Amino acid sequence: MNQDYIQPSSWSIIEVGFNASRVKASESLFSIGNGAMGQRANFEEQYSGSTFQGSYIAGVYYPDKTRVGWWKNGYPEYFAKVLNAPNWIGINVSINDDELDLFTCKKVENFRRELNMKEGWLKRSFTAVLQNNIEINIETKRFLSLDDDEIGVIQYSVTPLNGNAEISFTPYLDSGITNEDTNWEDKFWDTLSVNYQNNQAFIEARTMKTDFHTCTFMQSQFFENGKEINLDGSISQTPTKISLTYSKSIQQNETFTIHKFGGYIVDRNHDRKKLISAAKNVLDKAVRFGFNTMLKQQQKAWSNIWEKADITIDGDVKAQQGIRFNIFQLNQTYSGKDAQLNIGPKGFTGEKYGGSTYWDTEAYCIPFYMATKDQQVARNLLEYRYNHLDKAIENASKLGFSNGAALYPMVTMSGEECHNEWEITFEEIHRNGAIAFAIYNYHRYTDDYNYITEKGLEVLIGIARFWHQRANYSKVKDKYVILGVTGPNEYENNVNNNWYTNYIAKWCIAYAIENIERIKKGFDSDYTRVMNKVQLSNTEIEQWKAIAENMYFPYSEEQQVYLQQDGFLDKELITVVDLDKSNRPINQKWSWDRILRSPYIKQADILQGFYFFEDHFTNEELERHFDFYESFTVHESSLSPCVHSIQAAKLGRMEQAYQFYLRTSRLDLDDYNCEVEEGLHITSMAGTWMSIVEGFGGMRIKENTLSFNPKIPQQWEGYSFKVNFRNQIIKVNITQTDTSFEIDGDSELNILVNGKQVTVSPDSLVTV
Amino acid sequence: MNQDYIQPSSWSIIEVGFNASRVKASESLFSIGNGAMGQRANFEEQYSGSTFQGSYIAGVYYPDKTRVGWWKNGYPEYFAKVLNAPNWIGINVSINDDELDLFTCKKVENFRRELNMKEGWLKRSFTAVLQNNIEINIETKRFLSLDDDEIGVIQYSVTPLNGNAEISFTPYLDSGITNEDTNWEDKFWDTLSVNYQNNQAFIEARTMKTDFHTCTFMQSQFFENGKEINLDGSISQTPTKISLTYSKSIQQNETFTIHKFGGYIVDRNHDRKKLISAAKNVLDKAVRFGFNTMLKQQQKAWSNIWEKADITIDGDVKAQQGIRFNIFQLNQTYSGKDAQLNIGPKGFTGEKYGGSTYWDTEAYCIPFYMATKDQQVARNLLEYRYNHLDKAIENASKLGFSNGAALYPMVTMSGEECHNEWEITFEEIHRNGAIAFAIYNYHRYTDDYNYITEKGLEVLIGIARFWHQRANYSKVKDKYVILGVTGPNEYENNVNNNWYTNYIAKWCIAYAIENIERIKKGFDSDYTRVMNKVQLSNTEIEQWKAIAENMYFPYSEEQQVYLQQDGFLDKELITVVDLDKSNRPINQKWSWDRILRSPYIKQADILQGFYFFEDHFTNEELERHFDFYESFTVHESSLSPCVHSIQAAKLGRMEQAYQFYLRTSRLDLDDYNCEVEEGLHITSMAGTWMSIVEGFGGMRIKENTLSFNPKIPQQWEGYSFKVNFRNQIIKVNITQTDTSFEIDGDSELNILVNGKQVTVSPDSLVTV
Repeated sequence: MNQDYIQPSSWSIIEVGFNASRVKASESLFSIGNGAMGQRANFEEQYSGSTFQGSYIAGVYYPDKTRVGWWKNGYPEYFAKVLNAPNWIGINVSINDDELDLFTCKKVENFRRELNMKEGWLKRSFTAVLQNNIEINIETKRFLSLDDDEIGVIQYSVTPLNGNAEISFTPYLDSGITNEDTNWEDKFWDTLSVNYQNNQAFIEARTMKTDFHTCTFMQSQFFENGKEINLDGSISQTPTKISLTYSKSIQQNETFTIHKFGGYIVDRNHDRKKLISAAKNVLDKAVRFGFNTMLKQQQKAWSNIWEKADITIDGDVKAQQGIRFNIFQLNQTYSGKDAQLNIGPKGFTGEKYGGSTYWDTEAYCIPFYMATKDQQVARNLLEYRYNHLDKAIENASKLGFSNGAALYPMVTMSGEECHNEWEITFEEIHRNGAIAFAIYNYHRYTDDYNYITEKGLEVLIGIARFWHQRANYSKVKDKYVILGVTGPNEYENNVNNNWYTNYIAKWCIAYAIENIERIKKGFDSDYTRVMNKVQLSNTEIEQWKAIAENMYFPYSEEQQVYLQQDGFLDKELITVVDLDKSNRPINQKWSWDRILRSPYIKQADILQGFYFFEDHFTNEELERHFDFYESFTVHESSLSPCVHSIQAAKLGRMEQAYQFYLRTSRLDLDDYNCEVEEGLHITSMAGTWMSIVEGFGGMRIKENTLSFNPKIPQQWEGYSFKVNFRNQIIKVNITQTDTSFEIDGDSELNILVNGKQVTVSPDSLVTV
Repeated sequence: MNQDYIQPSSWSIIEVGFNASRVKASESLFSIGNGAMGQRANFEEQYSGSTFQGSYIAGVYYPDKTRVGWWKNGYPEYFAKVLNAPNWIGINVSINDDELDLFTCKKVENFRRELNMKEGWLKRSFTAVLQNNIEINIETKRFLSLDDDEIGVIQYSVTPLNGNAEISFTPYLDSGITNEDTNWEDKFWDTLSVNYQNNQAFIEARTMKTDFHTCTFMQSQFFENGKEINLDGSISQTPTKISLTYSKSIQQNETFTIHKFGGYIVDRNHDRKKLISAAKNVLDKAVRFGFNTMLKQQQKAWSNIWEKADITIDGDVKAQQGIRFNIFQLNQTYSGKDAQLNIGPKGFTGEKYGGSTYWDTEAYCIPFYMATKDQQVARNLLEYRYNHLDKAIENASKLGFSNGAALYPMVTMSGEECHNEWEITFEEIHRNGAIAFAIYNYHRYTDDYNYITEKGLEVLIGIARFWHQRANYSKVKDKYVILGVTGPNEYENNVNNNWYTNYIAKWCIAYAIENIERIKKGFDSDYTRVMNKVQLSNTEIEQWKAIAENMYFPYSEEQQVYLQQDGFLDKELITVVDLDKSNRPINQKWSWDRILRSPYIKQADILQGFYFFEDHFTNEELERHFDFYESFTVHESSLSPCVHSIQAAKLGRMEQAYQFYLRTSRLDLDDYNCEVEEGLHITSMAGTWMSIVEGFGGMRIKENTLSFNPKIPQQWEGYSFKVNFRNQIIKVNITQTDTSFEIDGDSELNILVNGKQVTVSPDSLVTV
C-alpha cells in the first residue's frame, strides 16, 4: 500500500485537501467514462502543475511504427497507441483578469473531490485566494451521459467571497493536444475544420494514418444564482482551437455558473460527411433537457446498473468501497452495447498497454459481464473474436501456420496483432486457449448453444488447428511437446512445455472435437455449412486426437506437482518469504535475465489452469500445487491476487483469501504498485468481482445448475451479491451465520448450496 | 551465390560496365579505408540514382535512444549508431553548364572500376554522353593514405571527346549529411564553423550528444594535360557546406584534372581548439608531396603489409581473389596503431551493427592480426578490453552481479553496453569466455606472459567471478547449471545449459586459477598488487573450483554427443538437406519463434567449443559432433563456414572444407547472403584467413612449438602463407606433392610437421 488519502466511504471516492503531488494519481482515480468515451479527472480550468491530460474515444487509436534493435520476421509493422483526443472539457476562468490556476493560487482551502459511484458523477469544490487577493468559491460537477454516450456535461460555478468581481468563463475546444507517449512531440491529429454557429462550436479532426474522423463539439448556458441569463461570447480562434469568452460582473457572494455540454461524434457511427449535423442534434437534445434533467437520467441509468451488479459488504467500509470502485470502473469502461469494442486494460484512464484487447477479456472479464448484464453483452464479447477470426488466421499464417490455423493477437485494436516483442507476440500463445475457454464458459453459464453452432465452432476449429500445428513430437519423450512459449507467468520466456499452455492446448482440441461431434449429430445444416467452409477431414481430427492424447506434462515425482515448465526445478528455489525485501518488486529491481532464471512467478500460471479446470483435479492436488507455487509468486501482475484469493477460499484459508482480496480490490485506491498515475487496472477489477462471487461465495455452474459454497471472511459481518443467471436475478446474502437466497424472476430455480439442492422461488427468501 | 559481376583477378576487384542496380553493392565492395577512416565507393560527382552514402571516422559514433515495447530493467539507455561523417570527397562536375550525373547521362560506355589491393587505390573510368550531347572521358583515382591516416587524395580528370568545352570542377565539403539509419531524418551533426583561407576550406562540426569535435578539410590543385595551372575559385557557402567552383575552357581531347586533398581531424587526437591548424598542417604536407608522391608512399605501405600477410593460391583465381580481398579489407579496417580502436563487423563499409566491438574480435580476428602484424597489435586488442574492465564490472553490477564480477558488453564503442535486446544483451554471455580465451591464445602464440601478469590476470579474475555468480546449483541434477543463456547459435534464445557456455565458463575458472597460482609462485609483486586490488580470498577460489568441477553438461547417450542445450532433443530433428529449399534462408522466411524451436543452427556452437579446445576431445568425438551438428547448421552467420571449414579439413574432408572456404572467402564478392549493399562482413574475413592457415595448413601451437599438418584442396595447384611467429616470418608453401618452409628471421626454428620435428634455418628452404 503506497497511499491512503482516499477517504473511506461506501458509495464515493473522496479526496480532501489539495496536494499538487497527488494530482496525477487523482486524475486516474477520479476518471469518468460511459463505455464510448472517457477521461481522466483533469481540471476544467487552467492548471500549470504536473498533470497527465487524457480524454479518450473508444476504438480510436494510432498505429505507431515498430522500432526494435534487430527486426524479427513476423513482427507487425505497427502497434496501437491509445490517443488523447481533442479536449472538450476546458473552461478557463478568470476573475478580474487573473487566471484561476490551482497551482499558483495564494491559498486553496476546503478542497474536496468526490466521485459518486452510485449516481455516476464527479464533483469538485474549493475556495481559493488568487494572486490578486480575490477569494472565490468553486463548485464543479460533471458526468458523461450513459443514456446518450456521445455527450457529457459540466456545471461550473464561481462565487466571489470577498468583494464584487468581473468573472469570465472561456469554454474551448482544442485539437492541438499531445500524447504522453510520444517520442518527438509528434502530432497525431489533423484538424480539418473549426466552426462556430448559433452558440455551438465544432472541431472536425482526423487521426493520422488510421483516418478516424471525429467532431468535437460544445455549447454553453449561463446562470446567475441559478437563473439562466443570456450572454454574448467573444470568439477567439486558431487553426486547432476555438474559445468563447463570456464575462459578467458578479456581486460578492453571488454565483455565476456555466453549463458546458460537449463530446465526440465519430465516423464509426455516423456518415463522415455529416459529423457536424450529428453533433448539432446531440447538442440540441442535451440543451433541451438541460443539466439537471440529464443528471436525473444519469442517476437512473446508474441505479439500473447497480440493481443488477451491486455487491454489499457490511462491517468493512474499505472493502465495500473497493468492490464498488471496481464494479463502477468496469461499467464505465465497457457497456456491452457495441460488439466492435472491448475492454482495454487501462480503460479510459491512461495510455499504457496501447491496445484495447488482451486475453484479460476472456479470462477475467467475461464472468463479470455474464453475471451482471444481459446475456447479449457476453455474447458481444465472444462475437468480437468471431469477427476477428479471419485476421487471426492471417496472423497465424504470417508466423508460418496454414490450413486455417488461427492465432489470436496478444494485443489488438482491429484484429491485427499490435504488440512487438517476440517472447510475447510470437510465444505467449496460451491466449488462444482463453478464447476457446470463454466459449465453453459462456455456454456453461448461459446454456446458449446457439452461439457455438452459429459462430463458436469455427473459432474452436481454427484454434485446435493452431495447437495441432504448434505441437511437435519429441522422440526422446515419445510425447507431443510445445516448445518455446511464454506462459501466463511472463517472468519466464521461451520455455518448453509450460504446463498451462500444454494443458489448455490439449483441452482446446478435446473441446473442439466434442463440439464437432455434437453438432454433427444434432445440427445438420450448421455442420454442413461449417465443414464446407473449413474443409476439416477425419484424418485431421485423428491427428488432433493423437496430439491431445499424448501431450507431455512435466511432473516432479519428488514434489508431486506438475512443473510450470521443463526446467523449473533447475532453478534456485528460494521462496518469496526468504527473499530479502530489498529485492522487491523484482520487476523494478532486477534485470530481465535475473528475473527469468529466478523461480519467481508474476501471476497464477499452473494455478490459473487449476482455476479454469478445477473439476479435473482433487482438492489435495490443488493444495499441493497452491503450496508449492504460491510460495514463489510475487503477484507483480494485477491479475494474480484474484485467482489466488479464489483458490485460497476454496482451500478454506479465509485469512489468506481475504488478504489477496484486499490487494486486488484496492490495488489502485491504495496504489500497491506505485503506478496509479499511469491509469487504473481495469481488467483486473473483474478478477476482484470473481474473488467475492466465486471465491467467497463459491459460485460455480455444476451440470447446468447454479451452485454455491458460501464462506465469509471473519472481518465482515455480511456481504451480498447478485447474479443474472439465465435471465433471472439471484440475490445472495451471506452472514457469519447463514446464507439466504432471493430471486428476482418469474420461475423457481433449483440451486446447489454446499452440494445440496435448494429451491428458490420468486418472492420468497430461502435461508440456509 | 547471388552475383557474379566481379571479374576474376588475382590482385584487383574489377567491375566492367555501368549498371545502376549494382551501384549500392559496388559501393560496399569497392570501399577504401586506412584504419582511422574509411568510405564507401560513392561517386565524387553528383549521382541521382540509388546510392548509400557513407564516410566514417573510427571511434566517432552517436548514442541513439533505446526504444522498446516494454522496457526491461538493465537495458542501456543508449545504443551506438555508426555515423556518416561530413562529405569531403564531393566534386561536382559540369560541362558547358550540364551537370555530370551517371544516372541521367544519355550514354555511358567503357565503365570500369578497379580496387587495386596490391597498392591500395580505387580507380574508375568511363566515357559518357551528357544531355547536351557533349561526350567526355572521365578517369578518377583515389586512396586514403596509410602513412598519414588523416588524409586522402582524389585525382579526377575530364577529357572532352567531341568538341571544346567549358569544364567546371566544384569540390566541396558538406556537413549537412544524413544517415541511412534514422527514424525521422534526424541530424546528428552540429556544424560549428565553415572557413576558407588560402585555397583551404574547413568545416568544424561536432556530433550531438557524444560531442566528438571534428574538422573536415580540403584543398585542390589543377592540371591541364598534366601541367599544373593556377585557377581562382568562386566560393559558395551555406551554414553546412562550402563549395569552390573552378572553371576552364578545355580543347577537344585535352585533359583537365583536379587533385583534391581532404580528410578529417578529430579531437580524440588533437586539441579541440586547434583542429583547423592541425588540418592546415596535414594539408600543407600532403600538397607539398603531391598526389604522385603520396601514391608511391601508398604503394610502399601496402607492399609492407602484403610482405607479411599475403596468401597466394595457384590454379584458382577466384579463391586467390577471395582471400586477398579478405586480407585487404581487414587491413583497411584496423591497423593496430591505436589501442582505443577495434574492429567493427562492417568496418568502414556500412552502418549496420551500430557498435564497433563484438566477440568477433577475440574469437576470429586476433589470430589473424597476431600472425600477420607485430605482436603489439594483438596486445593492443587485448589492452582494449583491459581498459574497459571497470566498465565491464559496472555493466555486471547493473545486472545484479557484485564483488568485481565483470561482464563485457555484447556490443560496445566505449566499454559500455550498446545493444538492447534482452536475449542478446543480458544472455549472450559466452562473449566473456572468448575474451578470456584470447588472453590464453595470445600467450600460447607469443609466449608474452608479461601481459597476463601486468593486465590479463585482473580480466581473468573479473570473468571467473562472473561465471561463479552466474551459475547456480540444481538440486535435481546435483550439478551446477547455467540457466537462461543465448549461445553462439543465436537461433536459440534463453536456453538452459548451452554446452558451449557451460564449457567455456568451466574453462575460464580453471584458467584463472591456473594463472593465479603461477603468478603467486613466480611473480611476487604482481601477485601482491593484483590481490590487493581485487581482494580475492581462498574461500572464493574454492567456491569457483566447486562450480567448475561440478558443471553440468547435457549429453545424449543415444547419440553419443553433448547436447547444445537441455531441450535440443525435444525438437523436430529434420536435417538441413531434408528441409525444403523454399524455407531458406530461414531468417528471411520464418518467424522468430519458428526459428527458435527448430533445430537449425546459425553458426558453430558446440563445434566452436571443439575448435577452441580441440585437444580436449578425440578425433572420433569431433567427427561424431560434426556429423550431428553440421547437419542442422544453416550457416546464416558469416562466422559459421570458416569454423566448419577448419573442422572439415581436420577430419580430412577436403571437398567439404573447400566448399566452406569458398563460401567464407567470397561471401561478399558473390553476395551469398543478399545483403552486400549494406556493407561488408569484415570480422568474418579473419575466419577466412583461419580456414587456410589453420584449416588447410593445419597450423597450431603445440607446447610452445609451431606445428603444421598441411593439406590442400584438389582444386588448387599450390598455396602459400606467411606467419609472424615470435618475431620471425615463416613462409609456408604447400603444393599437391610437398610442403616447404622458409624463415625470414635471424634464428633457426624447430617446428612440427605432421607431428614430426623439422628445423627451419634462416635463408634455406626446407621441403617436407
